[in-house]
Amino acid sequence: MKNTQQPSGMPIHRYRSYSEQFATELPDRTWPSKVITKAPMWCAVDLRDGNQALIDPMSPERKRIMFELLVKMGYKQIEVGFPSASQTDFDFVRMLIEEGLIPDDVVIQVLTQAREELIARTFESIKGAKQAIVHLYNSTSILQRDVVFRTDKAGVIDIALQGARWCKQYEATVPGTVVYYEYSPESYTGTELEFAVEVCNRVLEVLQPTPERKVIINLPSTVEMATPNVYADSIEWMSRHLDHRENVIVSLHPHNDRGTAVAAAELGYQAGADRIEGCLFGNGERTGNVDLVALGINLFTQGIDPEIDFSDLDEVRRTAEYCNQLRVHERSPWAGDLVYTAFSGSHQDAIKKGFEAMDAEAARRGVPVSELEWAVPYLPVDPKDLGRGYEAVVRVNSQSGKGGVAYLLKADHALDLPRRLQIEFSGVVQAKTDAEGGEVTSEEIWEIFQDEYLPAPAHRPDDKWGRYELLSTRTASDMSGSVQLDVRLRVGDEVEEARGVGNGPIAAFLEIMAEQGHDLKLYDYVEHTLSEGGDALAAAYVELQVGDKRLWGVGIDGDISTASLKAVVSAVNRAVRTEAGDRQLVGA
Amino acid sequence: MKNTQQPSGMPIHRYRSYSEQFATELPDRTWPSKVITKAPMWCAVDLRDGNQALIDPMSPERKRIMFELLVKMGYKQIEVGFPSASQTDFDFVRMLIEEGLIPDDVVIQVLTQAREELIARTFESIKGAKQAIVHLYNSTSILQRDVVFRTDKAGVIDIALQGARWCKQYEATVPGTVVYYEYSPESYTGTELEFAVEVCNRVLEVLQPTPERKVIINLPSTVEMATPNVYADSIEWMSRHLDHRENVIVSLHPHNDRGTAVAAAELGYQAGADRIEGCLFGNGERTGNVDLVALGINLFTQGIDPEIDFSDLDEVRRTAEYCNQLRVHERSPWAGDLVYTAFSGSHQDAIKKGFEAMDAEAARRGVPVSELEWAVPYLPVDPKDLGRGYEAVVRVNSQSGKGGVAYLLKADHALDLPRRLQIEFSGVVQAKTDAEGGEVTSEEIWEIFQDEYLPAPAHRPDDKWGRYELLSTRTASDMSGSVQLDVRLRVGDEVEEARGVGNGPIAAFLEIMAEQGHDLKLYDYVEHTLSEGGDALAAAYVELQVGDKRLWGVGIDGDISTASLKAVVSAVNRAVRTEAGDRQLVGA
Repeated sequence: MKNTQQPSGMPIHRYRSYSEQFATELPDRTWPSKVITKAPMWCAVDLRDGNQALIDPMSPERKRIMFELLVKMGYKQIEVGFPSASQTDFDFVRMLIEEGLIPDDVVIQVLTQAREELIARTFESIKGAKQAIVHLYNSTSILQRDVVFRTDKAGVIDIALQGARWCKQYEATVPGTVVYYEYSPESYTGTELEFAVEVCNRVLEVLQPTPERKVIINLPSTVEMATPNVYADSIEWMSRHLDHRENVIVSLHPHNDRGTAVAAAELGYQAGADRIEGCLFGNGERTGNVDLVALGINLFTQGIDPEIDFSDLDEVRRTAEYCNQLRVHERSPWAGDLVYTAFSGSHQDAIKKGFEAMDAEAARRGVPVSELEWAVPYLPVDPKDLGRGYEAVVRVNSQSGKGGVAYLLKADHALDLPRRLQIEFSGVVQAKTDAEGGEVTSEEIWEIFQDEYLPAPAHRPDDKWGRYELLSTRTASDMSGSVQLDVRLRVGDEVEEARGVGNGPIAAFLEIMAEQGHDLKLYDYVEHTLSEGGDALAAAYVELQVGDKRLWGVGIDGDISTASLKAVVSAVNRAVRTEAGDRQLVGA
Repeated sequence: MKNTQQPSGMPIHRYRSYSEQFATELPDRTWPSKVITKAPMWCAVDLRDGNQALIDPMSPERKRIMFELLVKMGYKQIEVGFPSASQTDFDFVRMLIEEGLIPDDVVIQVLTQAREELIARTFESIKGAKQAIVHLYNSTSILQRDVVFRTDKAGVIDIALQGARWCKQYEATVPGTVVYYEYSPESYTGTELEFAVEVCNRVLEVLQPTPERKVIINLPSTVEMATPNVYADSIEWMSRHLDHRENVIVSLHPHNDRGTAVAAAELGYQAGADRIEGCLFGNGERTGNVDLVALGINLFTQGIDPEIDFSDLDEVRRTAEYCNQLRVHERSPWAGDLVYTAFSGSHQDAIKKGFEAMDAEAARRGVPVSELEWAVPYLPVDPKDLGRGYEAVVRVNSQSGKGGVAYLLKADHALDLPRRLQIEFSGVVQAKTDAEGGEVTSEEIWEIFQDEYLPAPAHRPDDKWGRYELLSTRTASDMSGSVQLDVRLRVGDEVEEARGVGNGPIAAFLEIMAEQGHDLKLYDYVEHTLSEGGDALAAAYVELQVGDKRLWGVGIDGDISTASLKAVVSAVNRAVRTEAGDRQLVGA
């Protein structure tokens, strides 16, 4: 097969590969063999990086709701704003402190540039807090040095060191507060690694990390510029070259420009980082910050405690949508409306079998399903573990097969259709969806099922269904092995009485129907109760040869025997209807 | 700093790590050192995997529009449906063939399960096509073997081999069509690698790849179950162990359950794959397929031709949204509404400087900016290269600083504010956004600017602005180095005439204003034209000490000299207004 792809004509001459500009030599990298075994230290930056990227930034009320959500979920480090740059942020930090809203085990974090008046104002904002992380940053990239700061490397180091010194100096203004430091060489991914580590090490000299007061070195992919393995290499390299490594917390702050922020965070964490900054559902500047929900639940699916509570994910989503005034997409990892939904027939079929296997295994071991290891195809997590129901798991459209239809009939109506009946009925449903398009809801499937197999539902008593209707039955057995069946039967608009004899009621009824001119042969017969208890309804399914047609009938009744006779009537009525070309009820 | 994170209480006992279940030993992996240098072979599966995951699958009309979009963008392999499973799909494939809609260099691909009647029907669907890829799949994972197929490895191999043999057999029914094959061990990521390679190699024995008719071995992460490095390891391992490797096209089909499909595709491609299947904007079952737009434009930003045309990305997005009836999220890589938007002040400032540096460099070299290497902070790609404008690049909210405001005034009104004026004016804007929240549009910024610095705009002639208004001026110079200035001046509701003398008109005017009781000192003066040509307007900015206040004034006029006098009036009026406590016009 020849590759016939053609040049696109796009102006590729304007771009240069990252590897040409920034080379990391790390042939002895270890991260690709590492496996994550515990949660990182998390820092939620929804109230700062997330907030600043909103069309409509959070009001103080929305900010407070977001803060309380993050605390409730279990985040212990929360960047709450950029108080020196925004009066709203300053006031919010003051409110948190003055109203005592910060739990003892939660540390707020505030961002500041390396300018004296801003640092002074930042310390003013945290006065009275038990503890706080002051997050100092300055931009270090080649591009920003050239076009924004018009300075050289020494100039950038001076900015950073001066900032760090001012921090130490203004620390004296908040004697009641334990101050931790975070330093970010901003635009790190556009910075030569040798220079990035030099800046960080020089700042560490000033900040003097100790075991009790470690310093966070945050290495942001301010702009995501390369494949995530390159970021991981850089993190492993930095981790090896940072001074005071034992007293340094290496932190990641991946943005998602290339759509690989989650991967960058995970591989960077494998590469030796200790901490990850991100936002719920990937909010944040441009393409967003790394998605804390994806990262956390990814851990959960590996049997690792994320140390964050995602057990009511829909509530988390609703709150975040309210605070951010941005919708979470239908396909957002673990949280979108469609992410547990299978429309494809083969997926639905496998999911149905997976649920059944888990039910069987639970019954066998006498434990609830919730105690079993989760093992359902196409569902990498049990939606119930995240507070979701199974309603959305299987949805039916024109691409669906028997599995989805059967799943919904079982889930919502306790009907467990035999496999060949599933195929027959899904053909009926598919004829409808192929013709009309769109999704078919569980209610619509039930309507189609009733129209196809069952007498008119209670709310449509005037719809006479089919040529035959069983009005009453009486069975007598003399224990000789033969049964006498008497029935009153509506035949068209007439009522007839008839008697048949056979080795059981079905055989006797087939004899009665033969009198009516129907040459019937029974192929399959399946029956089950619809629920537990003595007064439960039973469903009976029969597969009959009626003339040259083989088809299924379904009967539901409190009496097992009557259900089976109704099933025969159902099959015969369907055969008659088809013969008569009376298609108006089929799947319509 | 102690990590105070707590156990979440989530049922982690129900999940096991992927590495416990599936181990790949690949200490000599080479992919982490590889760099992507060319586009893979693409296959767009929007019409199959994408379509089957829609709430409302595409109508024939929407299918056709999607097909034509994919062809126009440059995709040469397009999976068009699952014709044996859906009459709609079958009819669509027939329509493509019978109406001659498939260009000669485009190959359609059709999916089929390994069952004879489905394979027969599949070949029926492609009759008359010049060429087609028949994509055969069966599920191979441990879980699906156990709960769905209830068969062992041998049983799974039989399904695959029988399917491959039926394919070869039914190939005879389409003598006019060149048939290529793709085989997918579906649920590959849940399959032991040794078994996956065994199945593939056995299938290859049947399909007999040749240099002219290579066979595609597609290794789907049907469900994404581990970090993307694990997928990459598996691809490198498979690539080493597949027979006929030189005649095999190794294909990736990553799903996005963990949010790392783009990374899995990129790392898997580094690991030796040749081809990637995905959907525009990551449509597809559950969390979606890998996003072809992200992958393609990621290449573009590295100076690699994606061989797909993304030069009108908004049009691609609109069409996909119409066909899929699913919105593309605001933060979807390269395509979302917000991905080129900077709200943060420091980002805006840097972007503004980046644009200016590029303009200056282009002028210096005498080439258009579009010929320069792209280098603007926080914008990894020039939005114009993707058919976007710069309108969305800088948007202002309460988190924005001077950069964004200045950028918008420059972009939309050609006003190039001096830095200290930027700071002053952004304070005015921020006071408003802090108070009211929400975004401030460029129009609103212009309104605020006019209210703050300029006389009433033309559409509000009755709003008298400030105490002073310059009604006319006359300048006389005797070339002795001193200028005599005569002005008619509105002072409150009175009109006065006044004369001043100085070494220039501004100095003369300051003398006149001193007569009015204002002790003025000039600190800074900047002037520029608003456009080219003789009749252009000029903008003048003056920084004055007025009493104890230092503030800026702005004047715009066709006459340079008058503009500067107006700027002085602007500054004085602002000082008077502030003194009078007349705040009603400030930023309101």
